[in-house]
Amino acid sequence: MKLSPRQEEIVCLVKENQPITSEALAGRLGVTRAALRADLAVLTMIGTLDAKPKVGYVYSGKSSSGLVYSHISKIKVSEIMSKPVTVNEDTMVYDAIVYLFLNDVGTLFIENNGILTGAVSRKDFLKISIGGTDIHKVPVGVIMTRMPNIICANENDNAYDLAKKIIEHEIDSIPVVEILKKTNGKDQIKVIGKVSKTNITKLFVKLGENEN
Amino acid sequence: MKLSPRQEEIVCLVKENQPITSEALAGRLGVTRAALRADLAVLTMIGTLDAKPKVGYVYSGKSSSGLVYSHISKIKVSEIMSKPVTVNEDTMVYDAIVYLFLNDVGTLFIENNGILTGAVSRKDFLKISIGGTDIHKVPVGVIMTRMPNIICANENDNAYDLAKKIIEHEIDSIPVVEILKKTNGKDQIKVIGKVSKTNITKLFVKLGENEN
Repeated sequence: MKLSPRQEEIVCLVKENQPITSEALAGRLGVTRAALRADLAVLTMIGTLDAKPKVGYVYSGKSSSGLVYSHISKIKVSEIMSKPVTVNEDTMVYDAIVYLFLNDVGTLFIENNGILTGAVSRKDFLKISIGGTDIHKVPVGVIMTRMPNIICANENDNAYDLAKKIIEHEIDSIPVVEILKKTNGKDQIKVIGKVSKTNITKLFVKLGENEN
Repeated sequence: MKLSPRQEEIVCLVKENQPITSEALAGRLGVTRAALRADLAVLTMIGTLDAKPKVGYVYSGKSSSGLVYSHISKIKVSEIMSKPVTVNEDTMVYDAIVYLFLNDVGTLFIENNGILTGAVSRKDFLKISIGGTDIHKVPVGVIMTRMPNIICANENDNAYDLAKKIIEHEIDSIPVVEILKKTNGKDQIKVIGKVSKTNITKLFVKLGENEN
C-alpha cells in the first residue's frame, strides 16, 4: 500500500515524537486537526499507527502485512484444493508412474477399497527407479508412505495453515480428507482433494490479481 | 481487512445509489460530511470506492486484495531466491540424480564452463529412468531442456511476476541469471539463483507472519 507524502510525514513525526496527540501533529504540520482526520484514520486502520486514548498516537512498527494476513487467513482449503489422483495399493510401480505422467501430478494417493492408505511422490518413484528394482513387479503399496504417517487436512482448514505445514514438514502435497464414521467402530479416511505448492502458488498469483 | 459497521453501511449505500455525493451519503446516515471524511478516505484508499470529481462516489467492485497486490508487488526476486544447484553437461544422468537427492532439490541447472546451457527437472529424470536407457552412460547434456528454451529471470524482477510465469508455463524452477557482456560480442549467461514453487510458498507463509 502506497502512503501519500502527507501520510509518510505523519509517520515520521509520530516515530520521532511518540506519543503525540493529533493537536500536536496538526501544529507541527501547520494544518487543522480536521484536515488530519482522514490520514490518521487510514494509518490507524492499516495498523501503522496505534491511537492510545488520552495519550496520543504511537508507531506500531507493523507494516501493511498485517492486512495481508487478515485477508489470507480467511481463505479455506476447499477454495484452493484440486482433484486428487489415486491408484490402488496393488498397482505396479511402473504403471503408477505412467499414471502420474498421464495426470501430470507430483504425488499419487494410494487407496484400498476407496480408503486412503498411503502416498507416493515423484521423488519416491525416482528413488525406486534408479535402485535396480524391477518396477514392473513391485506394487506401490510396498514403497508408499503409509498412513498414519501422512499429514492430512480438512476442507474447512485454513489455506494459510496448510502452506505453513507444507514448508515446515517439507511436503509436496497434502491430501484433503473426509472421515467416514463407521458403525463398527473403526473410522475410515477418504481422500477428496489435495493441496500442493502449485495450489499455494496459484493462490498467491490470484491474490495479486486485484479483482477477486 | 475488516470494515467497521459504518463503513459497511457506506459501501451498501454507494452500491445502491451510485454515483452518490458525500453530502447525500451524510444525509442518508444522519451525520455531518466531516464525520464521514475519515471513512470515505479509508474506503477510497483501499480501493472499495472510487471518488469521481463532481460526480460522487461509485463502487469499484474491488476487494481489499488490491492492498495485497500493492504489498507483494514490491518484493524482488533477489529477496526470495535460493542457491541454484548445478552440474556440468557431461555428468552422467545417474550421477546427476544422486546429486539431485544429495542437495534435495527438484531441478538441476546444467553448465558448460560456468555458463548456463540447460536444466533438468525431477520429472525429466523420472522419464528417462523408466525408459530403458542406461542412465550410467548418458550425460545430462543429452536429456536437458536447452537454452534458450528456458524462462529465466533477473534478480531485480518482481517476485509476483515470476510466480505468474511459474503457473502460466507450468515450470518447476526458474533460474535467476546474470548476463556477462563479452568483448568478443557473444553474451554469456551465468546462473546465480533460482525461484521455485517452494520459494513462492515460503514467501506466502512469510507474508502472513504479521511482523516483517
